[in-house]
Amino acid sequence: MNIVILGGGGFLGRRIARHLATTGTPGGRAVESLTLFDLHEPAPLDAPFPVVCLAGDIVSPPEAAIPPGTDVIFHFAAVVSAQAEADYELGRRVNLRGTDAVVDACRRLVTAGGKPPRVVFTSSVASFSGGQSANLADDARQIPANSYGAQKAAAELILADACRRGFMDTVSLRLPTVIVRPGRPNKAASSFFSAIVREPLLGLETELPVADSFAAWFCGPRAAADWLLHAAAMDSSPLGLDRGINPPGISATIGELLAGLDVVSPGASALVKRVPDPSVEAIVGPWPACFTPVRAHALGFRRHETVVELIRAFVEDDLEATKRDRGLVN
Amino acid sequence: MNIVILGGGGFLGRRIARHLATTGTPGGRAVESLTLFDLHEPAPLDAPFPVVCLAGDIVSPPEAAIPPGTDVIFHFAAVVSAQAEADYELGRRVNLRGTDAVVDACRRLVTAGGKPPRVVFTSSVASFSGGQSANLADDARQIPANSYGAQKAAAELILADACRRGFMDTVSLRLPTVIVRPGRPNKAASSFFSAIVREPLLGLETELPVADSFAAWFCGPRAAADWLLHAAAMDSSPLGLDRGINPPGISATIGELLAGLDVVSPGASALVKRVPDPSVEAIVGPWPACFTPVRAHALGFRRHETVVELIRAFVEDDLEATKRDRGLVN
Repeated sequence: MNIVILGGGGFLGRRIARHLATTGTPGGRAVESLTLFDLHEPAPLDAPFPVVCLAGDIVSPPEAAIPPGTDVIFHFAAVVSAQAEADYELGRRVNLRGTDAVVDACRRLVTAGGKPPRVVFTSSVASFSGGQSANLADDARQIPANSYGAQKAAAELILADACRRGFMDTVSLRLPTVIVRPGRPNKAASSFFSAIVREPLLGLETELPVADSFAAWFCGPRAAADWLLHAAAMDSSPLGLDRGINPPGISATIGELLAGLDVVSPGASALVKRVPDPSVEAIVGPWPACFTPVRAHALGFRRHETVVELIRAFVEDDLEATKRDRGLVN
Repeated sequence: MNIVILGGGGFLGRRIARHLATTGTPGGRAVESLTLFDLHEPAPLDAPFPVVCLAGDIVSPPEAAIPPGTDVIFHFAAVVSAQAEADYELGRRVNLRGTDAVVDACRRLVTAGGKPPRVVFTSSVASFSGGQSANLADDARQIPANSYGAQKAAAELILADACRRGFMDTVSLRLPTVIVRPGRPNKAASSFFSAIVREPLLGLETELPVADSFAAWFCGPRAAADWLLHAAAMDSSPLGLDRGINPPGISATIGELLAGLDVVSPGASALVKRVPDPSVEAIVGPWPACFTPVRAHALGFRRHETVVELIRAFVEDDLEATKRDRGLVN
């Protein structure tokens, strides 16, 4: 199968690409080609199939970004939460008009006689609100409390309609906050959720902008990658008109994350300094702390590991590479 | 107060304009000016305040369409259901990018030091699905079954986010199917709901494309105008992040409408011919037949009259003018 990753240079895009190159045959079908598209040209990737790396603007992608014969598109290209909040124009442009451009590319493929590609879209927990007291059912309404979430929810509607019209075969996953991300903090308001685990494991101090009792809805990169690959290959016919899925993350408080950190690396949580930041809390505060994802289980999305397992997975998968990238080892 | 009606030449736009010109002081405040904007220049209107009529494209409106000092914007500009289904590009352009243009106009007013205008947006029952068995609560999710509904639901999200950011003060009303519309059939798939009452009252035969047992969610133009004027003047602070309201329409079957017609004009329903049309049923079939609009009642939206009262209102308000417009009287 021919696969495209829009946002192929990003964290999840890279993770999916590596998975496909090493172990992946989504749905039991061999990968024939992989196209990685991002604002900056993604780094080359060793793989047993051709990999094309392209740079461009998601609002006007070159035809080669979504070539004829494309079977699966992972649409991860986005402006993240704090950035979309700081720059309304940019968020709207990339998160909405970029999604329109994906629709138009798929329409062209279908008009030319191609099969509607499966489009796996990363929507977000940030498209909901409800905050600390929420435990949302699958039919909960998306009432976003930030522009990123509003744009993701609107993009879901546009992609579901494009699916109904036969331009594509859409599966939108409303991903929890993904932790533990390697690398450095980014412009996502949720960046600290990863930093409070990652930085202490690197021996570095870090700041916690919310209370220890603050709860959120999380998943690890392993689970996110598993879900996205499942979404790429699953039978989508049970979805009907409703193309959005709340995957089975885990609800945990900051205190529970730090306790898990101390299980994996005793005493590490002492490097976390409490520095309340109302601007961060204003964005992440309304995000729902918990979901009851019945539909995702029924559709075969795998259950999430525990917090301790999630932190151990970071140590196994990403800690050494993060140390090297940050110049923390010789 | 300074009022703008986008789509000011359309059915609801005209009705609101006439109401303001004769009896209207929304929220007890006098109207100082009215701007009517539409694709074709709206006809002049006699009023005790200045009325500006402008033609233009909602995607790039002239500054005069939403001038400095605007207090209330009725945003009715839209491509209707069957047309948005037939022409994807046009629906997306007007219903989504037109809404972005309204956001941008309001941002400019606010950036220049103005107060965020109240924006009253006509969303639609077509943004929901569920069909004949639905009785939707206020927190029901919008899972549209047509492009018009998807674009309206996405526009609601964009306008709610613009409200949260302080660009405007949004109230979105998800209007039921409005009957009885005067004039001729238009490109809305719901056009027949009016025609089966209006045409027999004009002494004309008409076609019914769905079964007599088919139920839908209706309102009359009087109720719609009352609700829209209430939305323009109400205290919006109880809405919080959730700017969408399901107003209190009435659920009725085609058989109940025709029985009401015969009460008002005995025997008139004999002019309705059963001519099933699957293309119309495909669009209107998934629309929910009923809502339980608790929130709207709590927010002061007035209850709906009966079906017979609704038909009598058409006879009182619109029948003679419709006869004249259609050349059916000398």
